[in-house]
Amino acid sequence: MIEVDCHILIKKDGILFLNEMKISLLYEIIKCGSLSGAAKELRISYQHAWTMIDEINHTAPRPLVIKQRGGADGGGARISDYGRKILDDYEQIKKHVMKTIRQINTEINF
Amino acid sequence: MIEVDCHILIKKDGILFLNEMKISLLYEIIKCGSLSGAAKELRISYQHAWTMIDEINHTAPRPLVIKQRGGADGGGARISDYGRKILDDYEQIKKHVMKTIRQINTEINF
Repeated sequence: MIEVDCHILIKKDGILFLNEMKISLLYEIIKCGSLSGAAKELRISYQHAWTMIDEINHTAPRPLVIKQRGGADGGGARISDYGRKILDDYEQIKKHVMKTIRQINTEINF
Repeated sequence: MIEVDCHILIKKDGILFLNEMKISLLYEIIKCGSLSGAAKELRISYQHAWTMIDEINHTAPRPLVIKQRGGADGGGARISDYGRKILDDYEQIKKHVMKTIRQINTEINF
């Protein structure tokens, strides 16, 4: 079966701000309460996760993730209220785009 | 400025059939008339281009690219009529999705 799908990106001044990987990382931080736990769930290195969060926080006007250094597990991390708003906005955008994609999938004939 | 963008994928039975890179490769083959020329334009290896075309042709019910082996330039390549139909379909899908994306971009407020 042929199906159309899409990956949604959010850019700021042409530079990548959020993609599906970064969104997954934010949700894993909510679930795990730490960056190390989130990295483990996504099977990426802690350093990679840290870099992604730094990129997200530096691109946004306000931090999406509050990192707490130190502790046996490499420190905790939590999503700010602004971060939660961005996640909600992303979900709304995705819903809207996926509605169009579903409509296309009922019509295509490759 | 914050902007939503998206990458469109076409899957067959859950497996990637076409993405923006593969679509670009098909258009470069039309422009260059050869796989080696197309690979050079996209700054990818000839082997990488060859593998992508093999994947596309094997996933589709009919080949999108007709490869002609041999010759000094590594052989020619051309897009089949079926391939051109698929490119046209992809453009239509993209137009449709980008209309939704543009609408979202007039409404978002991050």
